[in-house]
Amino acid sequence: MVGSCKSCESCSDNLENYCPKSILTYGSKYYDGTTVYGGYSDIMVANEHFVVHMPDNLPLDRAAHLLCAGITTYSPLRYFGLDKPGMHVGVVGLGGLGHVAVKFAKAMVVKVTVISTSPNKKDEAIEHLHADLFLVNRNKRSDAATGTLDCIIDTVSALHPLLPLIGLLKSHGKLVMVGAPEKPLELPVFPLLVGRKIVAGSATGGMKETQEMIDFVAKHNITVDTEVILIDYVNIAMERLLKTDVRYRFVIDIGNTLKSTV
Amino acid sequence: MVGSCKSCESCSDNLENYCPKSILTYGSKYYDGTTVYGGYSDIMVANEHFVVHMPDNLPLDRAAHLLCAGITTYSPLRYFGLDKPGMHVGVVGLGGLGHVAVKFAKAMVVKVTVISTSPNKKDEAIEHLHADLFLVNRNKRSDAATGTLDCIIDTVSALHPLLPLIGLLKSHGKLVMVGAPEKPLELPVFPLLVGRKIVAGSATGGMKETQEMIDFVAKHNITVDTEVILIDYVNIAMERLLKTDVRYRFVIDIGNTLKSTV
Repeated sequence: MVGSCKSCESCSDNLENYCPKSILTYGSKYYDGTTVYGGYSDIMVANEHFVVHMPDNLPLDRAAHLLCAGITTYSPLRYFGLDKPGMHVGVVGLGGLGHVAVKFAKAMVVKVTVISTSPNKKDEAIEHLHADLFLVNRNKRSDAATGTLDCIIDTVSALHPLLPLIGLLKSHGKLVMVGAPEKPLELPVFPLLVGRKIVAGSATGGMKETQEMIDFVAKHNITVDTEVILIDYVNIAMERLLKTDVRYRFVIDIGNTLKSTV
Repeated sequence: MVGSCKSCESCSDNLENYCPKSILTYGSKYYDGTTVYGGYSDIMVANEHFVVHMPDNLPLDRAAHLLCAGITTYSPLRYFGLDKPGMHVGVVGLGGLGHVAVKFAKAMVVKVTVISTSPNKKDEAIEHLHADLFLVNRNKRSDAATGTLDCIIDTVSALHPLLPLIGLLKSHGKLVMVGAPEKPLELPVFPLLVGRKIVAGSATGGMKETQEMIDFVAKHNITVDTEVILIDYVNIAMERLLKTDVRYRFVIDIGNTLKSTV
């Protein structure tokens, strides 16, 4: 994000991300009509309001994707009051968003259950990310996990059934969507009613909270798993992305790419 | 509701309506295995915890359906923080639930927009119920009403599109379903994300809040529109219900029916 109107209700509430006139960093039109090029470059000019301070102990390659995946999962954990010890949060999907959500929740002393369609992600979830529990996501379920979660952060952007996830929530529980399936999902209404449950959406975060998230990461020494590449590798990276063969995000090192080609 | 476990988290929070072991008033099995007959009779025996005190100025025929339609709409107005002057609440569907929702919201000094598929309900909404605005519910819309509502209470139990309703909400707005469509509705996820909006369900209320609602009705002299019938009329009433030819609920006067037949 490199701009917002600074006068609407969202901007006044430090929620520039929900400003209807906010400008995304790359390929958007700025207010003066010029195109913004805030990506695939080693330097850029930006309004200071939209610049985040990086603490010294946070390597830039580890920080890069926090400015989308990080704040996208951090913000709903805070907004929906899930950042309290004793809470039990489910994370659906163990990719770029999901693995950061697990790390944030654990740093907030929250109990975490990873929910995935791939049973072979169990070791990764428990051993590497220190999740407390692992569940295989099923279309139908009625087991000990039913009604145990205060909230679920759902990072999946493919079409998927919501009913089994709603079933995992306690009464008054919250299912927060941070992935954006292209087509509408099926929403069973009765299961929401009988437990006063909520399905919500959340998209990134404001600048104030983004800085808070970066400081939180630095304070808790949260490391984010990335694979740094030069831009020459980008076509292979795209092919690997389609196979979800990355743990968990590629970071293109533009600075070193430029050095090696100049 | 005539029983609940009194030990679960919901019961401890005065939310007996969300107790998994709650017992509905009519035709359910009580804890001792007997069938409960709390309807179509002039007297009944009930545990005092599940009895509501009726203020003297509230006629029983006007109070009857508050114990479902009333609390069903009152509870989400309170729980979701919509009971504050300055809020702007939409009410979808002007039937038994909807017309009470409008009266509650007006008594809470909240601005109310009635949203209905029937343009001919405008006079009823504005003149009779004193709603501030009336909108015809359309599948697609982009007009001055877009992004103006803090919350919508959706009382419709038929299949209907959620997208135009979500569009009427401000950022961080809440769409609360109190009707229960049998089949799943289509949930567009992206529109939820970009405004951090919520789709929630809510079902009746606990005993404490039910008493509070009855006292609120008596204090604000809220009159509820009913048509009182004897039980002989019930088959015709059912036919009229199917044509939505009732304003807004039938109340069967069992006491006078018994007197007239004995």
